[in-house]
Amino acid sequence: MGLAVRSATLDGEVAGLRCEGGWITELGPDVEPDEGDEVLDVAGLALIPGLVNGHTHAAMTLFRGYADDLPLMEWLTEYIWPVEKRMSDEDVYWGTRLACVEMIRTGTTCFWDAYWHAHATARAVEDAGIRAVTAAPLIDDGDPAKSERACSDAERSLGQIAEAGGELARPGFAPHAIYSVSERSLRLVAERSAELDVPVQIHLSETEEEVGTCVAERGERPAQYLDRVGLLGPRTVLGHGTWLDRGELELIAERGATVVTNPVANLKLAVGRVFPYRDARDTEVAVGLGTDGPGSNNSLDLLADAKAFALLQKNEARDPAAVTATEVLEIATGQRAELLGGRRLEVGAPADFLLVRADDPVLALGQLNAGLVYAAAGSIVDTTVVNGRVLMRGGSIDGAEEIVARARESAARLGLTPLSS
Amino acid sequence: MGLAVRSATLDGEVAGLRCEGGWITELGPDVEPDEGDEVLDVAGLALIPGLVNGHTHAAMTLFRGYADDLPLMEWLTEYIWPVEKRMSDEDVYWGTRLACVEMIRTGTTCFWDAYWHAHATARAVEDAGIRAVTAAPLIDDGDPAKSERACSDAERSLGQIAEAGGELARPGFAPHAIYSVSERSLRLVAERSAELDVPVQIHLSETEEEVGTCVAERGERPAQYLDRVGLLGPRTVLGHGTWLDRGELELIAERGATVVTNPVANLKLAVGRVFPYRDARDTEVAVGLGTDGPGSNNSLDLLADAKAFALLQKNEARDPAAVTATEVLEIATGQRAELLGGRRLEVGAPADFLLVRADDPVLALGQLNAGLVYAAAGSIVDTTVVNGRVLMRGGSIDGAEEIVARARESAARLGLTPLSS
Repeated sequence: MGLAVRSATLDGEVAGLRCEGGWITELGPDVEPDEGDEVLDVAGLALIPGLVNGHTHAAMTLFRGYADDLPLMEWLTEYIWPVEKRMSDEDVYWGTRLACVEMIRTGTTCFWDAYWHAHATARAVEDAGIRAVTAAPLIDDGDPAKSERACSDAERSLGQIAEAGGELARPGFAPHAIYSVSERSLRLVAERSAELDVPVQIHLSETEEEVGTCVAERGERPAQYLDRVGLLGPRTVLGHGTWLDRGELELIAERGATVVTNPVANLKLAVGRVFPYRDARDTEVAVGLGTDGPGSNNSLDLLADAKAFALLQKNEARDPAAVTATEVLEIATGQRAELLGGRRLEVGAPADFLLVRADDPVLALGQLNAGLVYAAAGSIVDTTVVNGRVLMRGGSIDGAEEIVARARESAARLGLTPLSS
Repeated sequence: MGLAVRSATLDGEVAGLRCEGGWITELGPDVEPDEGDEVLDVAGLALIPGLVNGHTHAAMTLFRGYADDLPLMEWLTEYIWPVEKRMSDEDVYWGTRLACVEMIRTGTTCFWDAYWHAHATARAVEDAGIRAVTAAPLIDDGDPAKSERACSDAERSLGQIAEAGGELARPGFAPHAIYSVSERSLRLVAERSAELDVPVQIHLSETEEEVGTCVAERGERPAQYLDRVGLLGPRTVLGHGTWLDRGELELIAERGATVVTNPVANLKLAVGRVFPYRDARDTEVAVGLGTDGPGSNNSLDLLADAKAFALLQKNEARDPAAVTATEVLEIATGQRAELLGGRRLEVGAPADFLLVRADDPVLALGQLNAGLVYAAAGSIVDTTVVNGRVLMRGGSIDGAEEIVARARESAARLGLTPLSS
C-alpha cells in the first residue's frame, strides 16, 4: 500500500506518481494507483521536488518579533543568550514544531539545523514527519581546556539525536565557528566525523570581522584554516560564506565541501556583502540555500529567499541574466549539493515532493520555474509529502493550532514579551 | 446601512470598526453594529490600514514568466514593445483585473498605475472595486514636433479615464521619463497638471545611465532638470529615484514631490544601487513603496517588497537598526507621502483596511509590525475592504477563476508563449 498522485502536471505534461516505503516507484503519464493506495487526484497542481533549507536554527521561532531592529551584539548579548540559558527541552521541542509547521506549509521537506537541546529538535522532527540533520552546537570559547568536555558532549548528543529522531532526523556535529571553537576541538570533530561518517555544520566567513581576525591571528583566511585542521571535506556544510574569496572557493571546490548561502539573514544582520555565487559557480562549489534562524530572517519561507538570492545576484552582477530561475530552483531544492540530499523527481528518489497550485493567478501565465521563483512564495504550495507521507493537503496541517498554542506558552514562560519596534 | 467589524484587535486591544458611505465612522473597543449593517465577526484577526502600491504597470501580468532572465534592452525591444503594440483594450482590461485579484489578495487597496489603454485599466479598477490613480504613458521620443499630439492624447485620456473609472479610478498624467519625453512636453504637462490639479507620475533616476546622460546633455542632474521645467511639485510622484543624490533629495523635499522606491524591481533589472532612503528620510522627502510592473518584479505582493526594502536598507547602512518595522509599514501604507493617500485607521479616514491573521504561526508570537514586515507576506491577509466594501473574505475573491481564464486567453492571443528559463 503506497501513495498515488493522479492528474498532476510535471514539466508541463500530465503525469502521475506512485511511492511506496518512502521511495518514488513510478513516475510518468501512465501511472495508475495500486489496490489499497492512498490516492490524491490533483488536476491543476504541478509536481516539483521538495525544498531543502540548508541552514537554520528552527527553535528560534520563539524569538521571532521579540527584539528586532537592534545592533547584532546588543541583540545577542542582551536578548538572545540570556533567554537561551533558560530554555528547556520542551521549549526547543515546541519552537521546532512551530518551525516545522511553517516549513511544511511553504514546501521545505528537509532542513539542516543546529541548536541547543538538539535531541528535542530531533523528536520534533520525527513527530512532524519532516526530514532534518540536527546537531548540538559545540562552543568552547576558543579554550582548549574546555575542549574535551565540549567534544564529548557533542559526541554524546549524536546518540541522543539518533534515538529521538528515528528514521527522519539524522545527527551531525556543529562546531559553531572558528572564532568560538578552539583548534583542538575543530581537529577532534574532524577526526570523529570521519570515523563515524557524520556531517559537520559550521558558520564560516559570515562577517568581514571574522575574516580580518582570522588573517591577523593565523596569517590565513578562514577556509584555509579550516582545511589545515582537517574540516574542509565532503561531509562539511559551511553556513554563509559571504566573505569568501575566489582562492577559498577554489579550495572548497577541490575538497568537496558545501556552502549554504543565507541571503535574507545576511541582509537583516547587515553583513554588507552578497555571497560571491558566480565565483562559486565558476569554481564548481556545491551550493545550497538557507533561511538561517527565524530570529534573524524572520521567515522560514525558502521560496521567498530563493527570489532574494536570485535578485541580489542579478543586481550585484549588474546583469539581469546573471542567474536563471531554473538554476535557482535547483539550488533551493538541494540539487546543486550532493551532501544536502536534494534530488530531482525520478524513480528511486526519496518520496519528498510538493504539489503547487499551477492555476493560481501568479502561476497561471508563463513559465513555471520563473513563476515559482519570481512571482510566487511558499503560500503557492498545496500539498507537501515527505518520505511518502502527506504532511499537508490543501494548505492545512493537522495539529497546527495546538502547536501554536504550546509555542506561545513556551515564549511566555521564557519571558519573551515583545519590545515595540 | 454600513459595514461593521466586531472582535478584531487593533494595536493589541480588542476593537471594532464601523464604516458607512466609504468612510470610517466609528473605531474603538465599544463599537456596535447598527441595524441592517453587514457584520464581520473576526476574532483572531487584526485590523491594519490597506497597503498603497505607489508605482506599477498592472496589466503587465500578461507578460509575467514570458521572458525572464534577459538583459534589459533585449527584454524591452525584442519581447515587450513588439507585443505591446498588438494589445487591445480587452487585453489591458483582463491583465489589470488579474493584477487586481493579486493586489486585493495581498492587501493592496490603492495603486498608482501607468499603462497603455489607461481607460481600460480604469474600467478594470472600477469593476474590481479597488482604488487607483491611472494614467496613459506620454512618450514623444524627445521630439518636440510630436509634442502637441502626445500631450493632447494624454489630456484626452484624462476624460476617458474619469468616465470609465467612476469613483475609484482617478486620472493622472504619466510622462514616461526625461529621456523619452521632450522638454516641451514636460512643460506642457506641468502647466496642465497645475491648471487641472491632476497628479503626475514620471520615472526618474532609475539607472546610472539616465543620470550620466542628463548631466552630459544639460549640465544638471535629473531632479534639477525636472524642477527647471516646472514638474517638481506636490502633485508629482517620482518612480524609482535610485540614483538621486543628497542635493536632489533636498530639492525634492523643498518642492514637496514624492519618491516611490521599487526595491525588488531595481534588483531584478540590476540597476546596481539601493535607493538612498536614509538621506530621503533626513531631508524629509515624502516616500512611498511600489512593486513596479509584474513583468519586472514579478510579484504584486507589496508586503514582501516591504521586507526587501527594510533589509536592503539595513545591509546598505551596515546597521540592523537602520530602519524599523513600524516605519516600513507606514511607508507601505502610504502614510509617509500625503499625495499617495494612505491614512492611519481613524474616524473620518476612507474605509480602506485589512484584517490579517494574527493567529497564523508567523504572527502568533512577538510584535505584530515586526511579524508583518519580516515574517509574513501578502498571504497573511484574510479580508480586504476598500471604500467600505468587502473585496476579499477568508482569502477568497469572487470571480477570480474567470479572470484567470480570460487573462490566459489574452496572453495566448498575443502569442505570449513562454521561453524556457
